[in-house]
Amino acid sequence: MKNDLIIRAARGQRTERTPVWMMRQAGRYLPEYRAIRKDIEFLRLCKTVDLAVEVSLQPYRLLGVDAVIMFSDILIPVEAMGQEVRLTEQKGPELPSPIRTREQVDQLIVPDPLEKTGFVMEIIRTLRRELDGAVPLIGFAGAPWTLAAYMIEGGGSRNYAQVKRMMFAEPKTFHALLDKIADTVILYLNAQIEAGAQIVQLFDSWAGELSRRDYEEFALPYERKIFESINRQSAPAILFINGCGNFLEKMAASGADVLSIDWRIDLAEARKRVGDNLTLQGNLDPCVLLTTPEIITEKARELIRKGGGHRHILNLGHGILPPTLVENARAFIEAAKTQAD
Amino acid sequence: MKNDLIIRAARGQRTERTPVWMMRQAGRYLPEYRAIRKDIEFLRLCKTVDLAVEVSLQPYRLLGVDAVIMFSDILIPVEAMGQEVRLTEQKGPELPSPIRTREQVDQLIVPDPLEKTGFVMEIIRTLRRELDGAVPLIGFAGAPWTLAAYMIEGGGSRNYAQVKRMMFAEPKTFHALLDKIADTVILYLNAQIEAGAQIVQLFDSWAGELSRRDYEEFALPYERKIFESINRQSAPAILFINGCGNFLEKMAASGADVLSIDWRIDLAEARKRVGDNLTLQGNLDPCVLLTTPEIITEKARELIRKGGGHRHILNLGHGILPPTLVENARAFIEAAKTQAD
Repeated sequence: MKNDLIIRAARGQRTERTPVWMMRQAGRYLPEYRAIRKDIEFLRLCKTVDLAVEVSLQPYRLLGVDAVIMFSDILIPVEAMGQEVRLTEQKGPELPSPIRTREQVDQLIVPDPLEKTGFVMEIIRTLRRELDGAVPLIGFAGAPWTLAAYMIEGGGSRNYAQVKRMMFAEPKTFHALLDKIADTVILYLNAQIEAGAQIVQLFDSWAGELSRRDYEEFALPYERKIFESINRQSAPAILFINGCGNFLEKMAASGADVLSIDWRIDLAEARKRVGDNLTLQGNLDPCVLLTTPEIITEKARELIRKGGGHRHILNLGHGILPPTLVENARAFIEAAKTQAD
Repeated sequence: MKNDLIIRAARGQRTERTPVWMMRQAGRYLPEYRAIRKDIEFLRLCKTVDLAVEVSLQPYRLLGVDAVIMFSDILIPVEAMGQEVRLTEQKGPELPSPIRTREQVDQLIVPDPLEKTGFVMEIIRTLRRELDGAVPLIGFAGAPWTLAAYMIEGGGSRNYAQVKRMMFAEPKTFHALLDKIADTVILYLNAQIEAGAQIVQLFDSWAGELSRRDYEEFALPYERKIFESINRQSAPAILFINGCGNFLEKMAASGADVLSIDWRIDLAEARKRVGDNLTLQGNLDPCVLLTTPEIITEKARELIRKGGGHRHILNLGHGILPPTLVENARAFIEAAKTQAD
């Protein structure tokens, strides 16, 4: 591989400079993405191999990021489990028949990832061919707690009232659902690694809504099961949680190689709390990218210094926001790439 | 005062049992509230003294809470500063002319609270008469960071993109706005205390979106200025932040008598982090109140035990959710009230 900085950083090996990519880097802030998206629905774009490959590659071609992440959505395997999913970027996901009963949980299947989501594997294989070893390819999946939140709420949520109601009042049903999702995610991520994903990121994006105890009971065991069951020899694993500050030490026990942390925690403090045997990814506030290239450069450089140039992958603390200007995203990437020059 | 448990708990004095109230206890989960609200707009209700008094008293009459909080909205003083505010509970607040420039900040006034928000003081005076010393009366205000977020975003927000853009890119303008809000809040809370509020709560509800450093620069100094400038001899002060886990120690240095904490932090751990010289308020996940009276009783009792019966005011970790059943809210209140029986 020509540029394997992120793989080496994830494995704890030395790197010449801090590598960089951005969560949601293939997305709406790019005019080239919007040009493709205007003629095709979001879910169809996820399933149309050549176009999904094209938008995955855009941030690499336009910004020179150190890794490409496949274009997809965390709800793709949920649809494969048998729950209807409607995806529109403007309104967010809609699942018109939310899961509320044990019967509904029992009716969900653990899908064969090749049979039901073969297009994802085809996107990965094509991306590997196109990249030809230029930079690593990142695969991903949603984690059980976060996917269960969408499946039970029937979409995004402000208070997570329905998922938590089931979690507190019907923990057995909830665990049965989490278990089924975990089994699905294990097969799905292993199929991605088999198809060529060289790193995988598990998004437990909304687990930060949980108390530490609820995190330990309803999120962490499933994250751990996934990390124990996927082929991490072939692909190191990243765990992202938005709002992980209350249980970062527990998150460090998940088995992930890399913890992707949100902007609310100081990176140096996070390092002290998790020790030296894990890589940290993050964690600039995505809103900083709405300012100016000068401010972005200054804040990104400061973060790079805090990361100490070892076991640190520069990233945002959450996904890049759609109104971000391309020149601002570029300033963020360049701040990492020009360190060693 | 017949029941001054909350005042004593706030001042660090011994109490026979852990006192209890609920954030947003005068609100939509009560059929008696909805019956009044159906004939009057939200903002008009806030300004109609007899009806605002009536809905403030409902949770005391129906549930027997240990304190009454005046019915109002944190955006009332924002309107008094000269920015148009539209309040509907369903859609949330809308501020059709959001603050984006220094000129707009300069045009805002620091209103005389008696002249511009005399109805709030009248609500407080009437509530004190009606209560006749039965339980303490809580006044409140929004804190500068949180109010600035509404004023700049023009309403609620998911990413706080606009307020943070100004915060990062135009810190001088932003500080000028925060300063003006702080001056407004000081006059407003002192007028409430003068009118008869016996405790005051400062809601910096969205400060948990900030990194510790940004909290220290843009939120904490204004909270501190407010607590230094209000008459805390007459009314102890509570500070609420949703998502305070990343900077709880800093929050403890704000000068508040009571820290109201969200459900994500373990209460016993919060106690260790802030020491023994502050009272803690909270912190049950409001979603627990969507389950059953049995589960609520169990979890509330556990929290009461964790609180140790001293310097603890039982409350939720955020406002009660509108779909909560009244019998469930009652179970929460009763869990505190039946401890000593």
